[in-house]
Amino acid sequence: MASKFYAIVIGAGTGTGSAAARRFAKSYPVVLMARSPASYQDAVDAINASGGQAVGVSADAADEGSLKAAFARVRDELLPGHKLAAAVYNVGANFKRAPFLEATVADLDWSLGGNVRGTFLFAQQTIPLLLETAAAAAARPPHPPTLILTGATASLRGAAHCAGFAAGMAARRALGQSLAREFGPRGVHVAHAVVDGVIDIPRTSGYNVNGGAEDGKLDPDAIAESYWHLHTQPRSAFTQELDLRPYVEKF
Amino acid sequence: MASKFYAIVIGAGTGTGSAAARRFAKSYPVVLMARSPASYQDAVDAINASGGQAVGVSADAADEGSLKAAFARVRDELLPGHKLAAAVYNVGANFKRAPFLEATVADLDWSLGGNVRGTFLFAQQTIPLLLETAAAAAARPPHPPTLILTGATASLRGAAHCAGFAAGMAARRALGQSLAREFGPRGVHVAHAVVDGVIDIPRTSGYNVNGGAEDGKLDPDAIAESYWHLHTQPRSAFTQELDLRPYVEKF
Amino acid sequence: MASKFYAIVIGAGTGTGSAAARRFAKSYPVVLMARSPASYQDAVDAINASGGQAVGVSADAADEGSLKAAFARVRDELLPGHKLAAAVYNVGANFKRAPFLEATVADLDWSLGGNVRGTFLFAQQTIPLLLETAAAAAARPPHPPTLILTGATASLRGAAHCAGFAAGMAARRALGQSLAREFGPRGVHVAHAVVDGVIDIPRTSGYNVNGGAEDGKLDPDAIAESYWHLHTQPRSAFTQELDLRPYVEKF
Amino acid sequence: MASKFYAIVIGAGTGTGSAAARRFAKSYPVVLMARSPASYQDAVDAINASGGQAVGVSADAADEGSLKAAFARVRDELLPGHKLAAAVYNVGANFKRAPFLEATVADLDWSLGGNVRGTFLFAQQTIPLLLETAAAAAARPPHPPTLILTGATASLRGAAHCAGFAAGMAARRALGQSLAREFGPRGVHVAHAVVDGVIDIPRTSGYNVNGGAEDGKLDPDAIAESYWHLHTQPRSAFTQELDLRPYVEKF
Repeated sequence: MASKFYAIVIGAGTGTGSAAARRFAKSYPVVLMARSPASYQDAVDAINASGGQAVGVSADAADEGSLKAAFARVRDELLPGHKLAAAVYNVGANFKRAPFLEATVADLDWSLGGNVRGTFLFAQQTIPLLLETAAAAAARPPHPPTLILTGATASLRGAAHCAGFAAGMAARRALGQSLAREFGPRGVHVAHAVVDGVIDIPRTSGYNVNGGAEDGKLDPDAIAESYWHLHTQPRSAFTQELDLRPYVEKF
Repeated sequence: MASKFYAIVIGAGTGTGSAAARRFAKSYPVVLMARSPASYQDAVDAINASGGQAVGVSADAADEGSLKAAFARVRDELLPGHKLAAAVYNVGANFKRAPFLEATVADLDWSLGGNVRGTFLFAQQTIPLLLETAAAAAARPPHPPTLILTGATASLRGAAHCAGFAAGMAARRALGQSLAREFGPRGVHVAHAVVDGVIDIPRTSGYNVNGGAEDGKLDPDAIAESYWHLHTQPRSAFTQELDLRPYVEKF
Repeated sequence: MASKFYAIVIGAGTGTGSAAARRFAKSYPVVLMARSPASYQDAVDAINASGGQAVGVSADAADEGSLKAAFARVRDELLPGHKLAAAVYNVGANFKRAPFLEATVADLDWSLGGNVRGTFLFAQQTIPLLLETAAAAAARPPHPPTLILTGATASLRGAAHCAGFAAGMAARRALGQSLAREFGPRGVHVAHAVVDGVIDIPRTSGYNVNGGAEDGKLDPDAIAESYWHLHTQPRSAFTQELDLRPYVEKF
Repeated sequence: MASKFYAIVIGAGTGTGSAAARRFAKSYPVVLMARSPASYQDAVDAINASGGQAVGVSADAADEGSLKAAFARVRDELLPGHKLAAAVYNVGANFKRAPFLEATVADLDWSLGGNVRGTFLFAQQTIPLLLETAAAAAARPPHPPTLILTGATASLRGAAHCAGFAAGMAARRALGQSLAREFGPRGVHVAHAVVDGVIDIPRTSGYNVNGGAEDGKLDPDAIAESYWHLHTQPRSAFTQELDLRPYVEKF
């Protein structure tokens, strides 16, 4: 692990986020970001215990100052001299399902903050670093620098009782497309994954999903493996979007 | 014009907004909303001068208090006893085209405010009124009550240098889909129009569009005519989305 | 009805086809085409009886020779000297729902014939006539010449047990897009309507649709009214695609 | 390579087809199908020479009898006792770009044959074999059995002068969606790859693509690597569709 490259995952406290961190830690030192150590510390410790290299940094993705400070710490203190190889935006601002007329503008703003502003701010922090990695003539990274955004069913489809969350996720997807079109030609791979189904994590262990079918929820490690594949795609064949769902999921 | 129904257009100061107001004024008294009288007063006067009935109300779509006050004025002072037949959300928060790394979070928030929060707030004001109209057994409106959202090319496609605007418009579209799925079954028609091209208004008179082809920009009155058609669709055949573009527009 | 323009509807024996013929007959003489008089004669007689002008012609849309002969008859015998104002392709080759492994290649070819080859052949017959109408300097038609294709839920979505029909309808939609992009700039309006739901015709009278909700099926006359609206759009604001579904339809 | 599983690629004579065969040959014996040995023999020999195991079989994908005979040969003579792990449909019936009014129905039928009927027939041959593999309790394959369909830009977008090819590719995509929805729940992974760009093969060596940018064409081996990734996805996280395009490709 003499790599001078690193990866960063924000929203690292979730099943998908910590799985992505574990997967990328097989090749790079990894920064796990979330709002508090309670969200990332276990994952950081587990990666370090199993031979990887991980650090945790607290940051609120929707808050520009907080995010800037976190990136400054990574650059100046935690991983000085390292180049960013991959970044994963995995914050999901869970807009509660509710009849539209019972939703408040605060609910909407919560979704727009975590799902849109956070994506925007994270991209503004990471894209310059990824461009720098792409441009490095001397020390080419093993794979094209990559920004991956986690999407959801609602990224493609507005559903009843889900207006605010759908708005936020559709906006994130549109941001991703815009970034891919602007920065792809400069060598940065921006991809969006439509994660369509319930993720298999402790919180969902009691959910009766897809009739209780075996493997009826998404395994976070499987999602992470596809994220890793996206990262390894050479620039002659970038994927901008893929979907991921259990074999038994209705779609 | 003894109608006890009315229509409301917000973003009434634009070409599309004032054209929609004029078109709906052929059948209903119309409320034109915009941030200031400078935006709506000419259109209000023109409608009244040509035999229609129009009132203007100042409101900021992205500000909950401002919008609530405006709707209260309509209900209590301007058109007491009237039922809402149709509402058009036509606010376009023009996110300036700019390289992503030069855009600020204030630019993004401007887009999210006018393009998403405004849509959300306007829907929260109008949907209860439209539901009431739909439920009225005694005084059925001539057409199913309708909420129309104006979209743009960016509603479907995130382009380079257009990330914040695309995010806002994609989110508006997702809101519209969610509302259609929730309130269609209760008799409210929610439609979204993808307006794909340059609109023919004084501000764009100098634009060289589509090689200067005759009719190469969208005529606002033509857009308004399609909005009126959407309103007249019976509930057995609602359109949720249509596109509108000049015959010579590349797409 | 001194019009020297006419409209043509193929697949005129269906609910949507005969309704479209009735609607366009309010402004133009109309040609109704179907494979046999049993399909179109009643609709032809009804239009003529109510003051419109209609003729029926037998033709198989999927058979080039049959279609060419039918168009020659219209030109030489039935409506000599008339220009084509609007054409509607409404043939639906009903691929039976079946498990994929029980479907035969003959089932697929049936769908590809009526749903794709027929669209292709009908477009090859009508587009030159519509271009001629668009180019006529002396005798401009009241509205831009129009080709409307009827689509279905399956145009946008492949469903289990519906592979062949979905293939045919997706292909028809793609044809329509290609034609719109090629012939729109030459003044011909090509539109595709996604008819999403059960149509209210004698054959479906016993269907329990949408919980038996009133107006829970598509009224063919409502579909026809939207087709007429598409035809009347000026070339500065063409719709390429719209959906049509009952207010209670799940989507 | 004691595997009792095998892979099959039809359209094996192309850059993508032979690359897919080479990639899957790292794990399985591979059958390469194309209309004549001239298309597949070199690729077969190269795989065998480099330590893999490959056989070639002549078959016309659009001809039911030809395809059935080819699969019977594989089962009875070439790889008796083997189970099908993965199948790739890579036939591209190149509909020539032409003005629509110059295209013939024979051009259309050529596209529908290779692009739709061929997909249908190949799926009818392979799905029963893949279901059998999925159901095998004793000898589970290393990865879920997979059917991959190669798509193109035209799968999603009907362009001018490209009507027949777009129709065929849109239909193939719809077939794939239908199959994924029907057979996913039974453990067969059906995926569709939208290959959006010019593929880097001898025939395109002179093409000036994307301004002559380095890596401006799709490397077939990169496509094949993503096909292999699709095959390795566990059933808890199947991708139904992904796009693949050079970083500099406009989209």
